Amino acid sequence: MNTAQLQHCHDTIRPHIHRTPVLTSSQLNQMAECELYFKCENFQKMGAFKMRGATYAIAQLSEEARSKGVVTHSSGNFAQALSLAAQSLGVKAYIVMPENAPSVKIAAVKGYGGEVILCPSNMEAREATAAKIRQETGATFIHPSNDAHVITGQGTTAKELLEDYPDLDFIVSPVGGGGLIGGTVLAVEALSKKVRVIGAEPAEADDAYRSLKSGKIETNTTTNTIADGLKTMLGDINFPLIQRGVEEIIRVEEEEIISAMKLIWERMKIVIEPSCSVTLAAVLKNKELFSNKRVGLIISGGNVDLTKLPF
Amino acid sequence: MNTAQLQHCHDTIRPHIHRTPVLTSSQLNQMAECELYFKCENFQKMGAFKMRGATYAIAQLSEEARSKGVVTHSSGNFAQALSLAAQSLGVKAYIVMPENAPSVKIAAVKGYGGEVILCPSNMEAREATAAKIRQETGATFIHPSNDAHVITGQGTTAKELLEDYPDLDFIVSPVGGGGLIGGTVLAVEALSKKVRVIGAEPAEADDAYRSLKSGKIETNTTTNTIADGLKTMLGDINFPLIQRGVEEIIRVEEEEIISAMKLIWERMKIVIEPSCSVTLAAVLKNKELFSNKRVGLIISGGNVDLTKLPF
Repeated sequence: MNTAQLQHCHDTIRPHIHRTPVLTSSQLNQMAECELYFKCENFQKMGAFKMRGATYAIAQLSEEARSKGVVTHSSGNFAQALSLAAQSLGVKAYIVMPENAPSVKIAAVKGYGGEVILCPSNMEAREATAAKIRQETGATFIHPSNDAHVITGQGTTAKELLEDYPDLDFIVSPVGGGGLIGGTVLAVEALSKKVRVIGAEPAEADDAYRSLKSGKIETNTTTNTIADGLKTMLGDINFPLIQRGVEEIIRVEEEEIISAMKLIWERMKIVIEPSCSVTLAAVLKNKELFSNKRVGLIISGGNVDLTKLPF
Repeated sequence: MNTAQLQHCHDTIRPHIHRTPVLTSSQLNQMAECELYFKCENFQKMGAFKMRGATYAIAQLSEEARSKGVVTHSSGNFAQALSLAAQSLGVKAYIVMPENAPSVKIAAVKGYGGEVILCPSNMEAREATAAKIRQETGATFIHPSNDAHVITGQGTTAKELLEDYPDLDFIVSPVGGGGLIGGTVLAVEALSKKVRVIGAEPAEADDAYRSLKSGKIETNTTTNTIADGLKTMLGDINFPLIQRGVEEIIRVEEEEIISAMKLIWERMKIVIEPSCSVTLAAVLKNKELFSNKRVGLIISGGNVDLTKLPF
């Protein structure tokens, strides 16, 4: 990855995404004892950064591949992102979802034009169903996080943040499947000699923390976290990027995630997912590390069920 | 009021307020069948437009009056606004609050440096207590909505909206005490020959609707609404402005308020009070009036108790 590649990606997806704002809060700065810059991907199209990577992955396909469509399996934001990105680019999207997925999520995917195929709720069934669709239709499988183009696309989030605030000392990213933080590493390598990349992860789904320690991809021993976007595991494309460019992964407890989420809603008046409040929680519990520094935090998404809030 | 006066007000308060963003949503545009421009005062300092009028009212006092402080009675956003505005300008603020006010609101006022004086929860006690403080301290009483400087200050909200979007056809404002919509009328008179000002009000607190019909200030017969910022009645300074410049006041039902509030939270990912969702509710129930027009909506504030949401 170099600057030109990242720029090409950004130019390619720009007509299909929002350039999201960076918000600040003097109250939260006082509380955290540093300067916080929130990159608000909750305001992104379909409500999450995943729109970026999905769009770039589809845009990179040949005309022939595009004519046959794309397929993924996801119960989360990537299902909606691939559907909307495909719709934007005039491509068919097949979305494999577990049959126990919330009906609002299935409706959202359909609303963005995705064709939903339900399957039993386990990883084998999901992979088998996606493989079958690929065989039958010739659609290209796009992985939500372990895909080079998806990762590059997600990297445009940190690219925009660094364009707006080139003097950041840190960028703190949530770590789920590793696409966002992997892309962040690429963007920082291309654009800044100074920024230190920190990951934030629930203690209840700390596969990335343990993987970085052990030097190999570890699986989650529990996924008992409210941050449902961060339950997934790393892949062989993004893990080497994390090893190369992430200084540290900070684990946070469930009550810290909920409390940071409430702080952001109350003080900043924005709706965010628990999956992104891990970053503020990580800063608040490590004040000495971030003291008086300029810290970018990636707010990854805002798709929450308002009838099931944790406070 | 002319353009120069409004400009003087804006220049005076500018160092103490945020210039808030105007947000749009293609999904909500589709739903409303017009172009919506949301002026986001939920992102204002202390979380509401009231910061504007409070700041201007204090800034217009003589040095001697400033040295003796300001006093108001309020259980809502104006209590916090006057406290923070006074703190910004180095002035003492006495805030009379009903003794049954939520402890978080009392704490917020104290957090902004206001001195809280509790009194029994009825209008006579509030007025008597404020009068006593005025006598004892020489502090100047500032009314939350029926004050010429407060009204002018609130008018800077619509001024900024019209600076950003000069081609609006409508501005829809909530109507509570009448300060915001009164200021909106002043701003439109100063800046636009074209914009039509519409008020939005809960049917459960429809004093302004009935006042505009009858030609005199009417009181509320009920105030059984979730839009707690809109229960107050009009005053003799703002009502003539409303008569002069407001084309129509649209009443909305409680379920329409809640449904519009949820729509804004879900689609726009911002935290807003029920008091401002009356504007979107009014547009959604009068599609023919606004059809294909450019409609500015004033999002008046974002101070909600997250543990007591109506959905």
